[in-house]
Amino acid sequence: MNIRMILKYEGTRYNGWQRQDSTDNTIQGKLEAILSKMCGVPIDIHGAGRTDSGVHAFGQVLNFHMEEKKNPEEIMSYVNRYLPEDIAVIECMKVSERFHSRLNAKGKIYQYRIWNTSKRNVFERRWTYAYEEKLDVEAMKEAAGYLIGTHDFKSFCTKKKMKKSTVRTITSIDIEKTGDEIKITYEGNGFLYHMVRIVTGTLMEVGNGTKKPMDIIRILDQKERSEAGPLVPSQGLTLLQVKY
Amino acid sequence: MNIRMILKYEGTRYNGWQRQDSTDNTIQGKLEAILSKMCGVPIDIHGAGRTDSGVHAFGQVLNFHMEEKKNPEEIMSYVNRYLPEDIAVIECMKVSERFHSRLNAKGKIYQYRIWNTSKRNVFERRWTYAYEEKLDVEAMKEAAGYLIGTHDFKSFCTKKKMKKSTVRTITSIDIEKTGDEIKITYEGNGFLYHMVRIVTGTLMEVGNGTKKPMDIIRILDQKERSEAGPLVPSQGLTLLQVKY
Repeated sequence: MNIRMILKYEGTRYNGWQRQDSTDNTIQGKLEAILSKMCGVPIDIHGAGRTDSGVHAFGQVLNFHMEEKKNPEEIMSYVNRYLPEDIAVIECMKVSERFHSRLNAKGKIYQYRIWNTSKRNVFERRWTYAYEEKLDVEAMKEAAGYLIGTHDFKSFCTKKKMKKSTVRTITSIDIEKTGDEIKITYEGNGFLYHMVRIVTGTLMEVGNGTKKPMDIIRILDQKERSEAGPLVPSQGLTLLQVKY
Repeated sequence: MNIRMILKYEGTRYNGWQRQDSTDNTIQGKLEAILSKMCGVPIDIHGAGRTDSGVHAFGQVLNFHMEEKKNPEEIMSYVNRYLPEDIAVIECMKVSERFHSRLNAKGKIYQYRIWNTSKRNVFERRWTYAYEEKLDVEAMKEAAGYLIGTHDFKSFCTKKKMKKSTVRTITSIDIEKTGDEIKITYEGNGFLYHMVRIVTGTLMEVGNGTKKPMDIIRILDQKERSEAGPLVPSQGLTLLQVKY
């Protein structure tokens, strides 16, 4: 059986999605431990997005294969019983044997939330990034326009595996200001390591006047990480949805 | 100088508003310690609502007197620098010497949030009460209607000081269902000890069919705590606003 799940989590307490070998405190690790216990054999799960330490998810998608025949509702209820309160399975279904959550993903939607005031955000402090200096949202929207489309995003990526292509397509960047909060929602076919957070840091530098909207064109051209803005904190980032 | 502040807090980690003598872990205690340090003399603060352990506030109002002349902005910024991240001063102003946050309060608005589904509320779990059994909101609204007005709410109060009057006026109870969440907003001239949580527990018993809406009339009449519903958990309750 191939099982597909949708997972929601507040990432604050975890070392990200991807299982680590030593002292494991990852979302994948927690979930695999429960599923392996349920099945009596080790279970490997595939997540659609390898969210970093501290990043949250509203709709992470994963799949895994298991031998034993079980009803998806039973699996979901068993897993939710053992998961800590900051992780929850919100959907569980049997899918075609060939479905792979990461390889079949056609697109992803990420959201970055900025709390743009000196007033403290008491209740949502764990999933917003508090940044006092006033940001010019109109300038940020103009800058975002230059990022839409298919580009080599090498400048917006922390060096990792240099051999792979750094070309990606961003289909939309929606910047919305409501009260003291700015939400930036990114949709694209895939995102490089740290890309959403570096793009956000760059848009914020446009917002505070350090950079001009047109600078984005040059930064894309130069393919140099040092030209882009800073990597903003992980706590503001949430994986909203994976599209298939 | 008489200073009035509006405070926001997530009550999860605290033993409520009111300072205790021994191992203090209260909102009042934290704030008094900071103000006393700032002024160099002990400062006593008066809060409008003595929120219980685990109860939150969007707009707790308090006042205190101090000798030293200081600008309200300076006080606010000093206090916010030392307050933990789950408490924040959101307003601070100089007021007439005679203003007393509790004695002058004309009304209060409390909100109770019920997460009414078996799905876990990953992000808002700290300020909602998760209750799986489906609640009949229409029946709850009918029951709430019988509570509006001036009544002796003795049945809806944990016995404490029996000598004081248990008559209060509830001016409105607004019950709103949005998706899986039910928000009950209470406005009244004042609320007895545990009253909002016992009224909520009683309305929930109407919602799950244990009680009928009309039972409220009898419960009010009997003036017996045992006739009303259970005290629901503090984590769902927030003091939204104090009116003057």
